Amino acid sequence: MQPQNIFDNEVFFQGYKNLRENPNSANILEEKPAIFSLLPDLTGKKVLDLGCGYGENCNLFSKMGAKKVVGIDVSSKMLAIANAENSGDNILYENICMENIFSINEKFDVVVSSLAIHYIHDFSKLVSNVNRLLNDYGIFVFSQEHPLTTAPKDGANWFKNADGSITHYKLTDYAINGERTVSWLVDGIRKYHRTFSSIINALIDADFTIKKMLEPVPTKEIIARDPSFAKDLHKPNFLVIKAERNNKNIEKFSATAPTIITQRTIL
Amino acid sequence: MQPQNIFDNEVFFQGYKNLRENPNSANILEEKPAIFSLLPDLTGKKVLDLGCGYGENCNLFSKMGAKKVVGIDVSSKMLAIANAENSGDNILYENICMENIFSINEKFDVVVSSLAIHYIHDFSKLVSNVNRLLNDYGIFVFSQEHPLTTAPKDGANWFKNADGSITHYKLTDYAINGERTVSWLVDGIRKYHRTFSSIINALIDADFTIKKMLEPVPTKEIIARDPSFAKDLHKPNFLVIKAERNNKNIEKFSATAPTIITQRTIL
Repeated sequence: MQPQNIFDNEVFFQGYKNLRENPNSANILEEKPAIFSLLPDLTGKKVLDLGCGYGENCNLFSKMGAKKVVGIDVSSKMLAIANAENSGDNILYENICMENIFSINEKFDVVVSSLAIHYIHDFSKLVSNVNRLLNDYGIFVFSQEHPLTTAPKDGANWFKNADGSITHYKLTDYAINGERTVSWLVDGIRKYHRTFSSIINALIDADFTIKKMLEPVPTKEIIARDPSFAKDLHKPNFLVIKAERNNKNIEKFSATAPTIITQRTIL
Repeated sequence: MQPQNIFDNEVFFQGYKNLRENPNSANILEEKPAIFSLLPDLTGKKVLDLGCGYGENCNLFSKMGAKKVVGIDVSSKMLAIANAENSGDNILYENICMENIFSINEKFDVVVSSLAIHYIHDFSKLVSNVNRLLNDYGIFVFSQEHPLTTAPKDGANWFKNADGSITHYKLTDYAINGERTVSWLVDGIRKYHRTFSSIINALIDADFTIKKMLEPVPTKEIIARDPSFAKDLHKPNFLVIKAERNNKNIEKFSATAPTIITQRTIL
Protein backbone atom coordinates (compact mmCIF):
# COMPACT_ATOMS: atom_id res chain seq x y z
CA MET A 1 0.00 0.00 0.00
CA GLN A 2 1.30 3.45 -1.01
CA PRO A 3 2.02 5.81 1.89
CA GLN A 4 -0.58 8.57 2.06
CA ASN A 5 0.71 12.10 1.68
CA ILE A 6 -2.26 14.37 2.21
CA PHE A 7 -0.05 16.95 3.83
CA ASP A 8 1.40 18.14 0.54
CA ASN A 9 -2.13 18.84 -0.76
CA GLU A 10 -2.39 22.67 -0.80
CA VAL A 11 -5.92 22.93 0.63
CA PHE A 12 -5.18 20.47 3.40
CA PHE A 13 -1.87 22.13 4.13
CA GLN A 14 -3.42 25.58 4.65
CA GLY A 15 -6.34 24.23 6.73
CA TYR A 16 -3.96 22.22 8.87
CA LYS A 17 -1.70 25.23 9.36
CA ASN A 18 -4.62 27.35 10.61
CA LEU A 19 -5.72 24.57 12.96
CA ARG A 20 -2.25 24.07 14.40
CA GLU A 21 -1.90 27.78 15.02
CA ASN A 22 -5.17 27.99 17.00
CA PRO A 23 -4.16 28.17 20.70
CA ASN A 24 -7.61 26.94 21.78
CA SER A 25 -7.62 23.67 19.81
CA ALA A 26 -8.07 20.29 21.49
CA ASN A 27 -4.63 19.55 20.10
CA ILE A 28 -2.97 22.26 22.20
CA LEU A 29 -5.22 21.98 25.27
CA GLU A 30 -5.58 18.19 25.55
CA GLU A 31 -3.09 16.22 23.44
CA LYS A 32 0.07 18.26 23.92
CA PRO A 33 0.09 18.31 27.77
CA ALA A 34 -0.72 14.58 27.80
CA ILE A 35 2.07 13.46 25.47
CA PHE A 36 4.67 15.67 27.17
CA SER A 37 3.62 14.35 30.61
CA LEU A 38 4.66 10.85 29.50
CA LEU A 39 8.14 11.73 28.23
CA PRO A 40 11.13 10.55 30.27
CA ASP A 41 13.98 12.93 31.16
CA LEU A 42 15.49 13.72 27.74
CA THR A 43 18.84 15.00 29.01
CA GLY A 44 21.60 13.53 26.85
CA LYS A 45 19.15 11.28 24.99
CA LYS A 46 18.75 10.55 21.30
CA VAL A 47 15.17 11.20 20.20
CA LEU A 48 13.31 10.23 17.01
CA ASP A 49 10.03 11.99 16.12
CA LEU A 50 7.78 10.07 13.69
CA GLY A 51 5.59 12.39 11.62
CA CYS A 52 7.29 15.49 13.01
CA GLY A 53 5.39 17.95 10.77
CA TYR A 54 6.51 21.51 11.45
CA GLY A 55 9.10 20.31 13.96
CA GLU A 56 7.70 22.22 16.97
CA ASN A 57 8.11 19.15 19.14
CA CYS A 58 11.64 18.43 17.85
CA ASN A 59 12.58 21.95 18.86
CA LEU A 60 11.14 21.39 22.34
CA PHE A 61 12.92 18.04 22.73
CA SER A 62 16.20 19.79 21.93
CA LYS A 63 15.43 22.51 24.51
CA MET A 64 14.61 19.77 27.05
CA GLY A 65 18.21 18.59 26.81
CA ALA A 66 18.18 15.92 24.12
CA LYS A 67 21.64 15.22 22.68
CA LYS A 68 20.29 14.63 19.17
CA VAL A 69 16.82 14.89 17.63
CA VAL A 70 15.81 13.33 14.31
CA GLY A 71 12.41 14.31 12.88
CA ILE A 72 10.97 12.41 9.93
CA ASP A 73 7.91 13.22 7.85
CA VAL A 74 6.33 12.14 4.57
CA SER A 75 5.68 15.79 3.62
CA SER A 76 8.53 17.85 2.16
CA LYS A 77 6.35 20.97 2.56
CA MET A 78 6.11 20.39 6.29
CA LEU A 79 9.85 19.76 6.54
CA ALA A 80 10.59 23.03 4.69
CA ILE A 81 8.75 24.84 7.49
CA ALA A 82 10.47 22.70 10.12
CA ASN A 83 13.88 23.63 8.73
CA ALA A 84 12.94 27.32 8.52
CA GLU A 85 11.26 27.66 11.92
CA ASN A 86 12.53 24.88 14.15
CA SER A 87 16.08 24.14 13.19
CA GLY A 88 18.97 23.54 15.58
CA ASP A 89 22.53 22.23 15.57
CA ASN A 90 21.43 18.92 17.04
CA ILE A 91 18.16 18.62 15.05
CA LEU A 92 18.01 16.73 11.76
CA TYR A 93 14.91 16.57 9.53
CA GLU A 94 14.56 13.77 7.02
CA ASN A 95 11.95 13.15 4.35
CA ILE A 96 11.13 9.56 5.28
CA CYS A 97 7.60 8.18 5.66
CA MET A 98 6.73 6.14 8.74
CA GLU A 99 6.30 3.02 6.62
CA ASN A 100 10.03 3.17 5.75
CA ILE A 101 11.71 3.72 9.11
CA PHE A 102 13.37 0.31 8.83
CA SER A 103 15.84 2.14 6.55
CA ILE A 104 17.13 4.25 9.48
CA ASN A 105 20.49 2.84 10.52
CA GLU A 106 20.74 4.27 14.02
CA LYS A 107 19.46 3.55 17.54
CA PHE A 108 17.48 5.93 19.77
CA ASP A 109 16.63 6.21 23.48
CA VAL A 110 13.19 7.70 22.88
CA VAL A 111 10.79 7.50 19.93
CA VAL A 112 7.86 9.93 19.92
CA SER A 113 4.94 10.32 17.55
CA SER A 114 2.20 12.92 17.85
CA LEU A 115 -1.13 12.37 16.05
CA ALA A 116 0.28 10.58 13.02
CA ILE A 117 -0.10 6.88 13.70
CA HIS A 118 -3.81 6.67 12.81
CA TYR A 119 -2.75 7.35 9.19
CA ILE A 120 -0.66 4.17 9.12
CA HIS A 121 -2.14 0.98 7.66
CA ASP A 122 0.09 -1.64 9.32
CA PHE A 123 0.41 -0.80 13.01
CA SER A 124 2.06 -4.12 13.95
CA LYS A 125 4.82 -3.60 11.40
CA LEU A 126 5.32 0.00 12.54
CA VAL A 127 5.73 -0.86 16.23
CA SER A 128 7.97 -3.78 15.40
CA ASN A 129 10.22 -1.36 13.45
CA VAL A 130 10.10 1.16 16.33
CA ASN A 131 11.21 -1.60 18.70
CA ARG A 132 14.25 -2.32 16.51
CA LEU A 133 15.20 1.40 16.48
CA LEU A 134 15.23 1.62 20.29
CA ASN A 135 18.03 0.85 22.72
CA ASP A 136 17.27 -1.51 25.64
CA TYR A 137 14.72 0.10 27.96
CA GLY A 138 14.05 2.64 25.21
CA ILE A 139 10.77 4.51 25.49
CA PHE A 140 8.07 4.85 22.84
CA VAL A 141 5.46 7.55 23.48
CA PHE A 142 2.72 8.19 20.94
CA SER A 143 -0.63 9.87 20.59
CA GLN A 144 -3.35 9.11 18.08
CA GLU A 145 -6.99 9.89 17.50
CA HIS A 146 -9.03 8.10 20.16
CA PRO A 147 -10.38 4.69 19.04
CA LEU A 148 -13.92 5.96 19.69
CA THR A 149 -13.21 8.82 17.26
CA THR A 150 -11.89 6.56 14.52
CA ALA A 151 -14.57 3.86 14.93
CA PRO A 152 -17.63 5.00 12.89
CA LYS A 153 -17.43 4.09 9.20
CA ASP A 154 -19.52 7.15 8.33
CA GLY A 155 -17.14 9.47 10.20
CA ALA A 156 -17.22 10.44 13.88
CA ASN A 157 -20.29 12.45 14.69
CA TRP A 158 -22.67 13.64 17.37
CA PHE A 159 -26.40 13.34 17.86
CA LYS A 160 -27.96 16.75 18.39
CA ASN A 161 -31.29 18.06 19.67
CA ALA A 162 -33.36 20.49 17.61
CA ASP A 163 -31.70 23.35 19.51
CA GLY A 164 -28.24 22.13 18.49
CA SER A 165 -27.26 20.78 21.91
CA ILE A 166 -25.45 17.46 21.96
CA THR A 167 -27.17 14.45 23.52
CA HIS A 168 -24.73 11.65 22.74
CA TYR A 169 -21.98 10.32 20.49
CA LYS A 170 -23.17 8.05 17.70
CA LEU A 171 -20.93 5.03 18.15
CA THR A 172 -20.82 2.38 15.44
CA ASP A 173 -18.35 -0.21 14.08
CA TYR A 174 -16.00 -0.03 17.09
CA ALA A 175 -15.09 -3.72 16.87
CA ILE A 176 -14.32 -3.60 13.14
CA ASN A 177 -10.68 -2.66 12.52
CA GLY A 178 -9.65 -1.15 9.21
CA GLU A 179 -9.66 1.75 6.82
CA ARG A 180 -11.97 4.73 7.31
CA THR A 181 -12.29 7.30 4.54
CA VAL A 182 -13.22 10.61 6.10
CA SER A 183 -13.52 14.24 5.20
CA TRP A 184 -11.31 16.48 7.30
CA LEU A 185 -10.24 19.73 5.67
CA VAL A 186 -10.38 17.83 2.36
CA ASP A 187 -12.32 14.76 1.18
CA GLY A 188 -10.99 11.22 0.92
CA ILE A 189 -8.54 11.10 3.80
CA ARG A 190 -7.62 7.55 4.78
CA LYS A 191 -7.36 6.79 8.48
CA TYR A 192 -7.17 3.44 10.21
CA HIS A 193 -9.36 2.37 13.10
CA ARG A 194 -8.01 -0.05 15.66
CA THR A 195 -9.64 -1.21 18.90
CA PHE A 196 -7.91 -0.67 22.24
CA SER A 197 -7.09 -4.37 22.44
CA SER A 198 -5.56 -4.43 18.93
CA ILE A 199 -3.29 -1.53 19.83
CA ILE A 200 -2.24 -2.95 23.19
CA ASN A 201 -1.70 -6.50 21.88
CA ALA A 202 0.37 -5.27 18.90
CA LEU A 203 2.69 -3.40 21.27
CA ILE A 204 3.04 -6.45 23.55
CA ASP A 205 3.66 -8.75 20.56
CA ALA A 206 6.39 -6.36 19.34
CA ASP A 207 8.14 -6.82 22.71
CA PHE A 208 7.03 -3.67 24.49
CA THR A 209 5.81 -3.35 28.08
CA ILE A 210 2.86 -0.96 28.52
CA LYS A 211 3.85 1.70 31.07
CA LYS A 212 0.97 4.18 30.95
CA MET A 213 -2.17 5.01 28.95
CA LEU A 214 -3.92 8.40 28.88
CA GLU A 215 -7.23 9.53 27.44
CA PRO A 216 -6.93 13.27 28.14
CA VAL A 217 -10.06 15.34 28.71
CA PRO A 218 -10.50 19.10 29.13
CA THR A 219 -10.18 20.65 32.59
CA LYS A 220 -13.16 22.36 34.25
CA GLU A 221 -11.57 25.72 33.45
CA ILE A 222 -11.38 24.91 29.73
CA ILE A 223 -15.03 23.80 29.69
CA ALA A 224 -16.10 26.94 31.61
CA ARG A 225 -14.33 29.12 29.03
CA ASP A 226 -15.60 27.16 26.03
CA PRO A 227 -18.61 24.89 26.74
CA SER A 228 -18.16 23.12 23.39
CA PHE A 229 -15.37 21.14 25.09
CA ALA A 230 -17.90 19.44 27.42
CA LYS A 231 -18.65 16.82 24.77
CA ASP A 232 -15.11 15.45 25.15
CA LEU A 233 -16.27 13.96 28.50
CA HIS A 234 -18.67 11.76 26.51
CA LYS A 235 -15.98 10.76 24.01
CA PRO A 236 -12.30 11.78 24.35
CA ASN A 237 -10.40 13.02 21.31
CA PHE A 238 -7.04 11.36 21.95
CA LEU A 239 -5.29 8.23 23.14
CA VAL A 240 -1.71 8.52 24.42
CA ILE A 241 0.47 5.52 25.28
CA LYS A 242 3.89 5.09 26.85
CA ALA A 243 5.61 1.75 26.23
CA GLU A 244 9.07 0.46 27.11
CA ARG A 245 11.21 -1.80 24.95
CA ASN A 246 11.89 -5.00 26.83
CA ASN A 247 15.49 -5.94 27.52
CA LYS A 248 15.89 -9.16 25.57
CA ASN A 249 18.55 -10.60 27.89
CA ILE A 250 16.47 -10.12 31.02
CA GLU A 251 13.40 -11.55 29.32
CA LYS A 252 15.21 -14.65 28.13
CA PHE A 253 16.86 -15.17 31.45
CA SER A 254 13.71 -14.74 33.52
CA ALA A 255 11.81 -17.15 31.31
CA THR A 256 14.35 -19.92 31.65
CA ALA A 257 15.52 -19.76 35.25
CA PRO A 258 13.36 -17.47 37.37
CA THR A 259 14.03 -19.15 40.70
CA ILE A 260 17.75 -18.55 40.95
CA ILE A 261 17.54 -14.81 40.39
CA THR A 262 18.05 -12.86 43.55
CA GLN A 263 19.79 -9.59 44.20
CA ARG A 264 22.42 -11.45 46.23
CA THR A 265 23.17 -14.18 43.70
CA ILE A 266 23.97 -11.69 40.99
CA LEU A 267 25.92 -9.06 42.94
CA MET B 1 -18.57 1.51 51.47
CA GLN B 2 -20.64 -1.62 52.21
CA PRO B 3 -20.13 -4.50 49.78
CA GLN B 4 -23.14 -4.93 47.53
CA ASN B 5 -24.94 -8.26 47.73
CA ILE B 6 -27.63 -8.16 45.08
CA PHE B 7 -27.18 -11.84 44.44
CA ASP B 8 -29.05 -12.85 47.58
CA ASN B 9 -32.08 -10.81 46.43
CA GLU B 10 -34.68 -13.47 45.44
CA VAL B 11 -35.90 -11.74 42.23
CA PHE B 12 -32.36 -11.06 41.05
CA PHE B 13 -31.27 -14.56 41.96
CA GLN B 14 -33.99 -16.22 39.85
CA GLY B 15 -33.47 -13.88 36.89
CA TYR B 16 -29.74 -14.42 37.02
CA LYS B 17 -30.18 -18.19 37.21
CA ASN B 18 -32.36 -18.18 34.05
CA LEU B 19 -29.83 -16.01 32.23
CA ARG B 20 -26.89 -18.18 33.19
CA GLU B 21 -28.71 -21.30 32.01
CA ASN B 22 -29.41 -19.82 28.53
CA PRO B 23 -26.92 -21.48 26.16
CA ASN B 24 -27.31 -18.63 23.65
CA SER B 25 -26.36 -15.77 25.95
CA ALA B 26 -23.49 -13.39 25.17
CA ASN B 27 -22.00 -14.69 28.39
CA ILE B 28 -21.67 -18.25 27.05
CA LEU B 29 -20.92 -17.34 23.42
CA GLU B 30 -18.53 -14.40 23.88
CA GLU B 31 -17.18 -14.02 27.42
CA LYS B 32 -16.55 -17.64 28.35
CA PRO B 33 -14.39 -18.61 25.32
CA ALA B 34 -12.42 -15.36 25.73
CA ILE B 35 -11.58 -15.75 29.41
CA PHE B 36 -10.66 -19.43 29.01
CA SER B 37 -8.40 -18.63 26.03
CA LEU B 38 -6.27 -16.43 28.32
CA LEU B 39 -5.73 -19.00 31.09
CA PRO B 40 -2.27 -20.51 31.45
CA ASP B 41 -1.79 -24.28 31.81
CA LEU B 42 -3.44 -24.99 35.18
CA THR B 43 -1.76 -28.37 35.77
CA GLY B 44 -0.61 -28.54 39.39
CA LYS B 45 -1.53 -24.87 39.99
CA LYS B 46 -3.37 -23.21 42.86
CA VAL B 47 -6.29 -21.16 41.53
CA LEU B 48 -8.44 -18.51 43.23
CA ASP B 49 -11.79 -17.51 41.65
CA LEU B 50 -13.11 -14.09 42.73
CA GLY B 51 -16.92 -13.92 42.59
CA CYS B 52 -17.21 -17.61 41.72
CA GLY B 53 -21.04 -17.69 41.85
CA TYR B 54 -22.33 -21.18 41.10
CA GLY B 55 -18.79 -22.52 40.86
CA GLU B 56 -19.03 -23.75 37.25
CA ASN B 57 -15.62 -22.27 36.48
CA CYS B 58 -14.06 -23.68 39.68
CA ASN B 59 -15.23 -27.11 38.59
CA LEU B 60 -13.65 -26.60 35.15
CA PHE B 61 -10.36 -25.35 36.64
CA SER B 62 -10.22 -28.54 38.73
CA LYS B 63 -10.89 -30.68 35.63
CA MET B 64 -8.13 -28.73 33.79
CA GLY B 65 -5.61 -30.09 36.31
CA ALA B 66 -5.47 -27.47 39.06
CA LYS B 67 -4.04 -28.81 42.32
CA LYS B 68 -6.35 -26.69 44.45
CA VAL B 69 -9.21 -24.31 43.64
CA VAL B 70 -10.64 -21.74 46.05
CA GLY B 71 -13.86 -19.97 45.03
CA ILE B 72 -15.07 -16.95 46.97
CA ASP B 73 -18.38 -15.12 46.68
CA VAL B 74 -20.38 -12.53 48.62
CA SER B 75 -23.57 -14.58 48.13
CA SER B 76 -24.21 -17.56 50.41
CA LYS B 77 -27.12 -18.56 48.14
CA MET B 78 -24.75 -18.88 45.20
CA LEU B 79 -22.27 -20.85 47.26
CA ALA B 80 -25.00 -23.27 48.38
CA ILE B 81 -25.53 -24.12 44.69
CA ALA B 82 -21.77 -24.24 44.08
CA ASN B 83 -21.36 -26.76 46.90
CA ALA B 84 -24.31 -28.84 45.67
CA GLU B 85 -23.50 -28.84 41.96
CA ASN B 86 -19.79 -28.11 41.56
CA SER B 87 -18.00 -29.61 44.53
CA GLY B 88 -14.76 -31.58 44.43
CA ASP B 89 -12.04 -32.86 46.76
CA ASN B 90 -9.69 -30.06 45.77
CA ILE B 91 -12.34 -27.29 45.55
CA LEU B 92 -13.09 -25.03 48.51
CA TYR B 93 -15.88 -22.42 48.54
CA GLU B 94 -15.71 -19.54 50.98
CA ASN B 95 -18.23 -16.80 51.75
CA ILE B 96 -15.82 -13.84 51.39
CA CYS B 97 -16.57 -10.70 49.42
CA MET B 98 -13.98 -9.36 46.97
CA GLU B 99 -13.43 -6.29 49.15
CA ASN B 100 -12.07 -8.56 51.91
CA ILE B 101 -9.63 -10.82 50.07
CA PHE B 102 -6.75 -9.30 52.06
CA SER B 103 -7.92 -11.69 54.82
CA ILE B 104 -6.92 -14.74 52.74
CA ASN B 105 -3.68 -16.09 54.16
CA GLU B 106 -2.46 -18.13 51.20
CA LYS B 107 -0.67 -17.63 47.87
CA PHE B 108 -1.96 -18.64 44.43
CA ASP B 109 -0.48 -19.19 40.96
CA VAL B 110 -3.55 -17.95 39.13
CA VAL B 111 -6.37 -15.58 40.14
CA VAL B 112 -9.45 -15.51 37.91
CA SER B 113 -12.59 -13.39 38.02
CA SER B 114 -15.50 -13.64 35.61
CA LEU B 115 -17.90 -10.68 35.27
CA ALA B 116 -17.74 -9.56 38.88
CA ILE B 117 -15.21 -6.74 39.02
CA HIS B 118 -17.53 -4.01 37.65
CA TYR B 119 -19.47 -4.33 40.94
CA ILE B 120 -16.39 -3.30 42.95
CA HIS B 121 -15.97 0.34 44.00
CA ASP B 122 -12.20 0.44 44.59
CA PHE B 123 -10.45 -1.25 41.66
CA SER B 124 -6.95 -0.09 42.64
CA LYS B 125 -7.30 -1.62 46.10
CA LEU B 126 -8.65 -4.84 44.63
CA VAL B 127 -5.80 -5.35 42.15
CA SER B 128 -3.24 -4.43 44.78
CA ASN B 129 -4.72 -7.17 47.01
CA VAL B 130 -4.74 -9.62 44.08
CA ASN B 131 -1.06 -8.88 43.49
CA ARG B 132 -0.27 -9.77 47.11
CA LEU B 133 -2.13 -13.09 46.79
CA LEU B 134 -0.08 -14.17 43.76
CA ASN B 135 3.25 -15.95 43.60
CA ASP B 136 6.01 -14.44 41.43
CA TYR B 137 4.95 -14.57 37.77
CA GLY B 138 1.43 -15.34 38.98
CA ILE B 139 -1.31 -14.69 36.44
CA PHE B 140 -4.45 -12.60 36.91
CA VAL B 141 -7.18 -13.09 34.29
CA PHE B 142 -10.46 -11.23 34.59
CA SER B 143 -13.47 -10.24 32.56
CA GLN B 144 -15.84 -7.37 33.17
CA GLU B 145 -18.57 -5.49 31.38
CA HIS B 146 -16.99 -3.50 28.54
CA PRO B 147 -16.17 0.13 29.46
CA LEU B 148 -18.46 1.28 26.65
CA THR B 149 -21.27 -0.69 28.28
CA THR B 150 -20.73 0.78 31.73
CA ALA B 151 -20.18 4.38 30.52
CA PRO B 152 -23.64 5.95 30.11
CA LYS B 153 -25.06 7.36 33.35
CA ASP B 154 -28.59 6.64 32.13
CA GLY B 155 -27.79 2.97 31.46
CA ALA B 156 -26.36 1.44 28.30
CA ASN B 157 -28.76 1.73 25.42
CA TRP B 158 -29.22 1.74 21.68
CA PHE B 159 -30.72 4.21 19.24
CA LYS B 160 -33.40 2.55 17.12
CA ASN B 161 -35.23 3.41 13.92
CA ALA B 162 -39.02 3.42 13.79
CA ASP B 163 -38.90 -0.22 12.54
CA GLY B 164 -36.91 -1.24 15.62
CA SER B 165 -33.59 -1.70 13.81
CA ILE B 166 -30.51 -0.39 15.59
CA THR B 167 -28.61 2.55 14.07
CA HIS B 168 -25.99 3.24 16.74
CA TYR B 169 -24.99 3.00 20.39
CA LYS B 170 -25.76 6.09 22.45
CA LEU B 171 -22.42 6.79 24.08
CA THR B 172 -22.22 9.31 26.92
CA ASP B 173 -20.06 9.95 30.00
CA TYR B 174 -17.23 7.63 28.91
CA ALA B 175 -14.53 9.82 30.49
CA ILE B 176 -16.33 10.11 33.83
CA ASN B 177 -15.37 7.26 36.16
CA GLY B 178 -17.65 6.29 39.02
CA GLU B 179 -20.87 4.73 40.21
CA ARG B 180 -23.67 3.90 37.81
CA THR B 181 -27.05 2.86 39.21
CA VAL B 182 -28.75 0.64 36.67
CA SER B 183 -31.73 -1.63 36.36
CA TRP B 184 -30.80 -5.17 35.42
CA LEU B 185 -33.24 -7.86 36.55
CA VAL B 186 -33.99 -5.58 39.54
CA ASP B 187 -33.72 -1.82 40.10
CA GLY B 188 -30.93 0.01 41.88
CA ILE B 189 -27.92 -2.14 41.03
CA ARG B 190 -24.64 -0.33 41.61
CA LYS B 191 -21.92 -0.81 39.03
CA TYR B 192 -18.71 1.12 38.53
CA HIS B 193 -17.55 2.61 35.28
CA ARG B 194 -13.83 2.91 34.59
CA THR B 195 -12.12 4.04 31.39
CA PHE B 196 -9.64 1.74 29.63
CA SER B 197 -6.76 3.91 30.80
CA SER B 198 -7.92 3.80 34.45
CA ILE B 199 -8.07 0.01 34.35
CA ILE B 200 -4.69 -0.41 32.63
CA ASN B 201 -2.90 2.17 34.81
CA ALA B 202 -4.30 0.67 38.04
CA LEU B 203 -2.91 -2.75 37.05
CA ILE B 204 0.50 -1.26 36.18
CA ASP B 205 0.58 0.73 39.43
CA ALA B 206 -0.19 -2.47 41.37
CA ASP B 207 2.94 -4.04 39.82
CA PHE B 208 1.36 -6.06 37.03
CA THR B 209 2.54 -6.38 33.43
CA ILE B 210 -0.27 -6.36 30.86
CA LYS B 211 0.01 -9.56 28.77
CA LYS B 212 -3.16 -9.51 26.66
CA MET B 213 -6.45 -7.67 26.24
CA LEU B 214 -9.54 -9.04 24.51
CA GLU B 215 -12.84 -7.43 23.49
CA PRO B 216 -14.65 -10.53 22.23
CA VAL B 217 -17.27 -10.21 19.51
CA PRO B 218 -19.66 -12.79 18.05
CA THR B 219 -18.51 -14.96 15.15
CA LYS B 220 -20.21 -14.72 11.74
CA GLU B 221 -21.96 -18.02 12.50
CA ILE B 222 -23.47 -16.65 15.71
CA ILE B 223 -24.70 -13.51 13.92
CA ALA B 224 -26.15 -15.58 11.06
CA ARG B 225 -28.08 -17.70 13.58
CA ASP B 226 -29.21 -14.75 15.69
CA PRO B 227 -28.92 -11.33 13.96
CA SER B 228 -29.47 -9.52 17.27
CA PHE B 229 -25.79 -10.25 17.98
CA ALA B 230 -24.72 -7.95 15.10
CA LYS B 231 -24.94 -4.90 17.38
CA ASP B 232 -22.00 -6.23 19.41
CA LEU B 233 -19.77 -5.19 16.48
CA HIS B 234 -20.75 -1.59 17.20
CA LYS B 235 -20.14 -1.95 20.94
CA PRO B 236 -18.66 -5.12 22.51
CA ASN B 237 -20.18 -6.54 25.70
CA PHE B 238 -17.01 -7.59 27.49
CA LEU B 239 -13.42 -6.68 28.28
CA VAL B 240 -11.02 -9.47 29.26
CA ILE B 241 -7.48 -8.85 30.53
CA LYS B 242 -4.51 -11.07 31.33
CA ALA B 243 -1.84 -9.56 33.59
CA GLU B 244 1.29 -11.04 35.18
CA ARG B 245 2.62 -10.21 38.61
CA ASN B 246 6.11 -8.73 38.26
CA ASN B 247 8.96 -10.54 39.94
CA LYS B 248 10.21 -8.02 42.47
CA ASN B 249 13.83 -9.27 42.39
CA ILE B 250 14.14 -9.01 38.62
CA GLU B 251 12.58 -5.56 38.64
CA LYS B 252 14.95 -4.26 41.27
CA PHE B 253 17.95 -5.77 39.59
CA SER B 254 17.16 -4.51 36.10
CA ALA B 255 16.57 -1.00 37.40
CA THR B 256 19.93 -0.81 39.15
CA ALA B 257 22.37 -2.59 36.87
CA PRO B 258 20.91 -3.37 33.47
CA THR B 259 24.16 -3.43 31.50
CA ILE B 260 25.85 -6.36 33.18
CA ILE B 261 23.01 -8.79 32.61
CA THR B 262 23.67 -11.19 29.82
CA GLN B 263 22.77 -14.82 29.42
CA ARG B 264 26.48 -15.68 29.49
CA THR B 265 27.38 -13.69 32.59
CA ILE B 266 24.76 -15.44 34.64
CA LEU B 267 25.06 -19.01 33.40
